[in-house]
Parts: sequence; structure tokens; C-alpha cells
Amino acid sequence: MTATQTPPPAPVRSWWGWGWSQSALSDEECVELAARLPGLPARPLPVPKVSGLALPAVRITPPDSLADRISSAPLDRASHTYGKAYRDVVRALHGDVTAAPDAVAFPRSEREVVNVLDWASGHDVAVIPYGAGSSVVGGTEYRDGGHAGVLSLDLSAMDEVLEVDRTSRAARIQAGSRGPVLEGQLRPHGLTLRHFPQSFEFSTLGGWLATRAGGHYATLYTHIDDLVESMRVVTPAGTGESWRLPGSGAGPSPDRLFLGSEGTLGVITEAWMRLQDRPVHKASASVDFDDFTAAMDAVRAISQSGLHPANCRLLDPGEAAMAGAAQRGESVLVLGVESAHQPVAGRLEELVAIARDHGGTPRPREGGAGDEGVGAWREAFLRMPYLRDALARMSAVVETFETACTWDRVAGLYTAVRDDLGAAVAEITGAPGLINCRFTHVYPDGAAPYFTVIAAGKRGSESAMWDDIKAAATEILTAHRATVTHHHAVGRDHRVGYDRQRPEPFALALRAAKSALDPAGVLNPGVLVDPVR
Amino acid sequence: MTATQTPPPAPVRSWWGWGWSQSALSDEECVELAARLPGLPARPLPVPKVSGLALPAVRITPPDSLADRISSAPLDRASHTYGKAYRDVVRALHGDVTAAPDAVAFPRSEREVVNVLDWASGHDVAVIPYGAGSSVVGGTEYRDGGHAGVLSLDLSAMDEVLEVDRTSRAARIQAGSRGPVLEGQLRPHGLTLRHFPQSFEFSTLGGWLATRAGGHYATLYTHIDDLVESMRVVTPAGTGESWRLPGSGAGPSPDRLFLGSEGTLGVITEAWMRLQDRPVHKASASVDFDDFTAAMDAVRAISQSGLHPANCRLLDPGEAAMAGAAQRGESVLVLGVESAHQPVAGRLEELVAIARDHGGTPRPREGGAGDEGVGAWREAFLRMPYLRDALARMSAVVETFETACTWDRVAGLYTAVRDDLGAAVAEITGAPGLINCRFTHVYPDGAAPYFTVIAAGKRGSESAMWDDIKAAATEILTAHRATVTHHHAVGRDHRVGYDRQRPEPFALALRAAKSALDPAGVLNPGVLVDPVR
Repeated sequence: MTATQTPPPAPVRSWWGWGWSQSALSDEECVELAARLPGLPARPLPVPKVSGLALPAVRITPPDSLADRISSAPLDRASHTYGKAYRDVVRALHGDVTAAPDAVAFPRSEREVVNVLDWASGHDVAVIPYGAGSSVVGGTEYRDGGHAGVLSLDLSAMDEVLEVDRTSRAARIQAGSRGPVLEGQLRPHGLTLRHFPQSFEFSTLGGWLATRAGGHYATLYTHIDDLVESMRVVTPAGTGESWRLPGSGAGPSPDRLFLGSEGTLGVITEAWMRLQDRPVHKASASVDFDDFTAAMDAVRAISQSGLHPANCRLLDPGEAAMAGAAQRGESVLVLGVESAHQPVAGRLEELVAIARDHGGTPRPREGGAGDEGVGAWREAFLRMPYLRDALARMSAVVETFETACTWDRVAGLYTAVRDDLGAAVAEITGAPGLINCRFTHVYPDGAAPYFTVIAAGKRGSESAMWDDIKAAATEILTAHRATVTHHHAVGRDHRVGYDRQRPEPFALALRAAKSALDPAGVLNPGVLVDPVR
Repeated sequence: MTATQTPPPAPVRSWWGWGWSQSALSDEECVELAARLPGLPARPLPVPKVSGLALPAVRITPPDSLADRISSAPLDRASHTYGKAYRDVVRALHGDVTAAPDAVAFPRSEREVVNVLDWASGHDVAVIPYGAGSSVVGGTEYRDGGHAGVLSLDLSAMDEVLEVDRTSRAARIQAGSRGPVLEGQLRPHGLTLRHFPQSFEFSTLGGWLATRAGGHYATLYTHIDDLVESMRVVTPAGTGESWRLPGSGAGPSPDRLFLGSEGTLGVITEAWMRLQDRPVHKASASVDFDDFTAAMDAVRAISQSGLHPANCRLLDPGEAAMAGAAQRGESVLVLGVESAHQPVAGRLEELVAIARDHGGTPRPREGGAGDEGVGAWREAFLRMPYLRDALARMSAVVETFETACTWDRVAGLYTAVRDDLGAAVAEITGAPGLINCRFTHVYPDGAAPYFTVIAAGKRGSESAMWDDIKAAATEILTAHRATVTHHHAVGRDHRVGYDRQRPEPFALALRAAKSALDPAGVLNPGVLVDPVR
């Protein structure tokens, strides 16, 4: 850069939608995108200015000792009102911020987290732990209504890799670290956490741990749960740290109680995470299937082969067409293999052979490293939420839901969602919608289908329409005993399905644990369990 | 078999020691074995007759509805008094059965388990869930003293594979199934649970789940935790079943709270378990190391290679000599590779190459399938507990303890145990003992060293001597923040170390869960948490 050049503007986070403001689609792009869907309004919803939002009055006064770390600035309150679900975006676009927290705390140390919880517990102030705000299940939105105040606890200032143990391939990482931030700090050590959820850029280690995130390396080590060596958790009843252990049979795993606790039992401040050497061998391939049932069988065989592909992603015909990966109604299986140590070409050939045995037709491989196609797919994949926001501005109903079940039920569930939810969408929106599916994760004993619903909505009723569709989807999942969530977590939006799915003795235990650790009932009230006060 | 042949006698379980009575060593064999250890008595302790044991008076009267399933026969009471730790065997040999339960229940259905818990909760009768009694940590021994009665709840009559889902490779299996029983029922389906703890013959699925057992496939899927798809658990507060799911992010895992709960929160009655195709490709190799530090480095490199050997077992010089696997003070690394699908010879060569790069000398491979050596080792391994019992009868102190820590601490821990515990053993027993070590499980981030202590004891003080040695060992483990147990569980014997290791917030949560699920405090009192009554 020469002295006369102006540096590019620093990216700014969107207060109402996904990611960076600069990456949002223009009004014209919104209109163009929506042209594919009949029945939508001609113009996008305007993005409200923060200065014009009717934020509720601030009800809390933090103590002087915390004043430097707590903000009631309108932008902070507005941007911490919701997560990034479709219904969140739509409500923000309509200027509805009645659920805004009174303030946002930005602690810079665990000690400050402790102080916040102490003060909140003593003043009946609800505390909503907040990583980077990518929840799509209402996990960061206060709805209870009964507290004297609401504080969003934003961990983003705690984003350091504090320690690296190269010998054990592990690192101590602060919970507020977003994906690119922590990977950037690990790279000089030749190490990677290799956990890449779709929200990678805009989610944090603490959020992944609190919600049991799934990464996009789709087999073997895909869940953040399996990458945890130890954790530190601040609860209103005290702070705890599990020992760094590669394995232990000492009672129920302490970490597993806090993994998935979604901020209801405590605030995760840091964790020792298991890392991997950075992969240097990579290869990928795509296989077409004319018959989706055959494709599912192929994926099952691959998942049970012991070959552990890094990527094993099946797109159904609708999803493949939408992604621009298919032109003639075929399904597409994307396979990737990676290793830090051994060449992977042979393993890829074995995987492709299994797919071929099940009727698949491998596409010609590109030259070079072989993952250009995967790279392009990854770019499109990371771009999706911005497109979702654009369609939301056009009052389309665009949302996803994910689940998982064992292989014996996968095909039946897929058909039921396509047929029964398709009928529900048509009834609710007044016109047929699109229901596409991809398998994001596969296991030897089952798969995680991820569905996308796209339909024409009605301006002003977008969120209500989606709620009706989602209720119908939950009924279908329940009927198939498919999980209410595979990696999006429960939050507040999934409580109905979660309460059906959770074994009652575990519910009793969880409520008891909640009462013991959060006796004032201030931690993320309404998530997982009803507030106990 | 012709009509005139007499069938061999059915094997009978030992009431005082390991396994089958018929497999115990004779008096002469005990004396011969003990000749290697100086300073022991000339004759073995006699095995007491059950009819001569001073069992305490029976205090409980079960209701008529349960009478058919509950026994107070002396043999049942004596054989359910202890697990199979060294100190258990020694106390039984000395005729000490003061801790005997009043009765043993043998339910044949989950309904009967519910009835037993209902009755026990209403009558202040402690219930000790019992699989096949192989606990080595006092997990099945009542010590509390405060209850109106004690009932051992033996699940062994519930030992059926109830359902097999070949598509998802899973089976619903009753908790009382011992290893060979369940594998025998899975074999016709071409499937295997492939979970082989040393206690395989004399432990049950329910016991494995309740104690978070580790199998002897030493990398990747080694812990029973990872093989669970769903579980049914009967608690005094109700019965629950988790859904069969290959993966889920719906709140903290319900199963993980009961895994490792050691009978304190409920009784596991059955589980859907993830299975594997039976391996058909097998290969193994042994590698010698002159330098144990180099051997540890080799094992670390292998554990971080992504090659996932089925077996990766390192014997230190003492352990290798004891096993007859070494003659000149070398360490021995045993490697095994298995697959149901792909040839494994190439993978074995890669593993051996890593070992060679770290200074190892591969032994000449035998012809044939290549696992004869492993088979012989496995036989010796399964025979070990019988030898332990024989030495116990000769009043030797012979016991093991296992742990795990991250790689950065492994070498230091090994040295500390050899040096500091060696000094403690010499002081406690009055003579140097043997302290051998093998790594039973390895992980990318650490290893699980398994130590064996052999020393000359003093007749009548065997158990007290071991308790002193064990206390010294626990101090060393604590100082290195190495887990008090890797796969033996906590029971009552590991409470001191466990209470130090467990994060305090988790302790609060666990006690609260216990109170919620077992309000009368009858389930395995004293294990994991102090009785709350």
C-alpha cells in the first residue's frame, strides 16, 4: 500500500441480518433474486435506521465497577435483541425490537464475568450469554418478561488463544473467539481446530460449546463435543474447571453437562481444545445419481465403510438445482478426503467405487488439487445467509431446519417431509413452495437431513407463516422420532419438540441442576427448562 | 457326543475370586507361582467354605410379589458382597463378609426392576445395582451403614438381544448381558459390538454403561460412551428412554448423565447400541524399543497419525518381561489393524514405519493371518486375574491402577510413579516391589498408562498394605492432574481422588440430580456423592 491509498473501510456487522453490512444485497439485487419466486411484493422491505427504532426504556443501572464494560447504546441493544433466524431478521426489518436487552456487557476477563453474574443474580437481572449472535433458535432473545432487567453478556472481547501445547496438540482458547480469529492464532503453530460450521465467521468457540455445534467435516470428529479436553465454566454458584484429560471414566463427564446447556447453567469462559495437524493432502469428487433412494443407500454404505471421508454431502434434486450443481434433476454427492499425513487419492477412489456400486456416475475430475469444486461450493454455502436475508426483505418465507435419525427411518422421514410438509406449506402460504434437502452429516447408524423451505410470504405475516410451517415440521419430526435439532440447538424456538424428546428423568435432573447452579434463575431464562424462580 | 459320554460339568462362578471356579489355580500352582516372589508364606490361604461364613442376620422381608425373585441364600449373599478388586478377594479369603447384602434380587423384566425400586425406596433399603460383579473400585459393596437393609440388584437374568436393526447396524440389548452372551447373539447377524474390556467374560452391558468402560480396541471407538444410541433407565422418580439418534444437539446429552453414574441415579435396563460389521481383515506386528522414552514418542506419533490402529499397546520393560514378551529389558509395542471392508496390510506398514522412525525394531512377522501373537497375548491377558487371585492367596500384594493424562505430562507421570511409588511400596511392604506399566489406550492428545504393583505382603495385613500403596498412588496422580480412573470407575475406593478432580459446580449439579431422581437416597449410597437422606 502506498501512502496515498485510502485503506478499505473496516467491515461493519449488520445489526439486523447476517454477517457484514457490506455483504448484504442491494435493493436491486433483492428484486432480481426474488424474480424467481412468483407472488412477492415489487420492492424490498427497507432496512430501518437504528436511530428510528422504538427501543424500550432502560430499566437497569449497573454498578460503577462494571460501568466501563456495559453499554446501553441503541446500536448495541438493537444488535443484541435477536439471533439470526429468519423470524429474527423479519422482525428486525419490521422494526420490532421490543425484546431488546436493557444493556450489553462486554467483559474482558473471567473475573468480570463473575462480577456480572454476581450483580445480576442479586438484582433479578436476566443474563443472556452471547457469542457472536448467530443463534437461529431464539437462543439469545429474552422472552420471559418477569425479570427486573435484561443484560446481554457479549463474550467477544475474550478472544485469545492463551496457550498452545504442541506436544498434545491442544490449545487453551477463550470462549469469545470467532472461528477465523482462533484459526488465525493457531495457524502459526501448524495446528487447526478444524471445526467449520456454516456460521464459522460469525460464531464463537463458547457458542459452539454451549450449543453442541456440528462442523462441516461430516464424519468422525464433526461435533465440538468430541474436541473438548477441558472447560472452565462460571456459574452463579461458583466457577469450575475440568482437568485436561484425553479420556476419563471418573463419573459422568462434567463437560458433557455444560456442553449443550445453552447458557442456562453457566457461562463458558475458556476451553482446552483438541487440535489437528493442518491437512496437506486433499482430494474431492462429485457423483451424480438419477435415483435419490440409491444415493441414500450409497451414502449409508460410505458411512459404514470405515473410510471416514472429510466431506460426505448429499444434495437432493431440488437442492442440487438450487446450488447450480445439477441441470437435469439428478442428486449430487460431494465427497472429500483430507489428511495431514497420508496421501488420500486411494481412499477417494474407494469412496467413489462404493458410490458407483450403488448406481452413481462420477463426474470427470478437474485437474490440480481436486478441491476447486469444493471451494466454489464452500463460497456459495457461506453466501447463503445473505441471500436468505435478501429474500426475507422481499417477504419470501425462507428458512431451514435440520434433524437426524437412524438409517431405518431416513427414507421415510424424507418422503414425509416432502409430502406432508409440502402440503402444509401450500395451505399456509396459499401456493406450493420448495422443500429441498441435503444430508449435512452422516454416521454409521444414521444421517442428518437438512431441509430448506422457500415459499412466497405475505408482507407483515412472514414470521407467523413460518411459525405455522415450523409447527407442522415439528409434528412430522416427532412422529418419526427424529431429533428436533441436530446442531442448531434448542433455544426457545425448539422447546415444544425438545420437551417431547427429552426423557423425563433427565428433565428432572436438569431442572435440579439449574436450581443448584443458578438459584436466582437469571441465566438465559426459558431456554431448555422453564424459569424456576 | 455319544450317549455314553458324560457332559463336562457346567462352569461355576467363583464366589470369592475371579471368573470360573474351575479356572482358579490349585494350591500347588499357587505355591509354584509365588516362588518367584521372595518373602511370602509357604502355603496359600485356604478358600473358606460358604457354609462356614459368618453372614450377618437378614433384616429385610421382601413383599410376596417379589419373593420369587429375591434370594437370601448364603451363596448369593456371599458372592454379591464384593466386587473383584484385590482387597475384595483378600477380604473374602479371610472370611470377612460383614458387608454382605441382606438379599439379592434377580429381576427378569424392567417392570420387576421398577417394583424393586419402589419397594426399596419405601422401606429405606439400599439398592446396589449389580451386573456381573467385576467392579475393582468397591462399586458394588455397601459401606454406608445407615439403611434398614441392603439389596443387591443382579441384572443377569435380563440378557437378551431384543432387536437388531441391520440397516442402521444397531441392536437393542438388555443390560444384564455379559460380553460373550451378547456377542453370541449378534454373530448370526454378522455384527459385533466390538467392546472388549479385560473383564469381557464377567461384566455386562449395563455395567459397561454405568462405569464408562473402555474396550481393548485402543483408539477411535474404544469407550462404550461412543457406542450408545439410546438408553432406558429406571429411576425411583420414573423411567426414561432417550430417542435412537445418530447425533443430536438437543440440550446436554441425556445419556451422558447416566453414563458413568454407577448406579447412583438409576438402573440402566437396556440400550440401543451401535454395532460394526465383523472384521475380516486383520494384521498385527510387534516392535521392540531399547529406550522407553523413544517408545512413548513413537506411540504419540502413531496416535496423532490418523491411522487408527485397532490395537496400540505399549509394554514397558517390566511389563514386557512379566508377559514373557521380552528377555533383555526392551519395551514392546504391539500394533494391530482390523477392518471389515478394506485390506489392512498397507496401514500396518505405515504404522510400523512410524515406530521404526522413532528407533523401534520390528520383530519378524509370523506367517498366516498375523494375529497368532496377539491371540496368545489375549489368552495371557484374560488369564491374568486368575494369577492375581493365586498370588493373593499367597499374601502377595498384587493390584493395578490406571490413569490418563495429556502427552505433555505422560513421561513425567511415568517416572514419578516408578520412583515415588516405588519408594512408597518399599517403605510400606519392607522390600522393593515391582511396578510395571503398559499403555492400554492412546489418544491424539494423551495416553492411559496402566500400572501393576506386585510386592510381598504380610498375611492378615494384605488389604491394609494395598490401601496405603493406593493412597500414595492417588497423591502422585493428583499432583500430575492425571485422572483417578481411566476406565475402572470411581465406586467407593476412588472417592478421595474423584472429589479432588471433579469441578465443584458439577458436584453441585450431580448432588441435585441425585436428590431429584433418588429422593429416598437408596441407590448405591456412597458412590460418587455422599448419601443425601
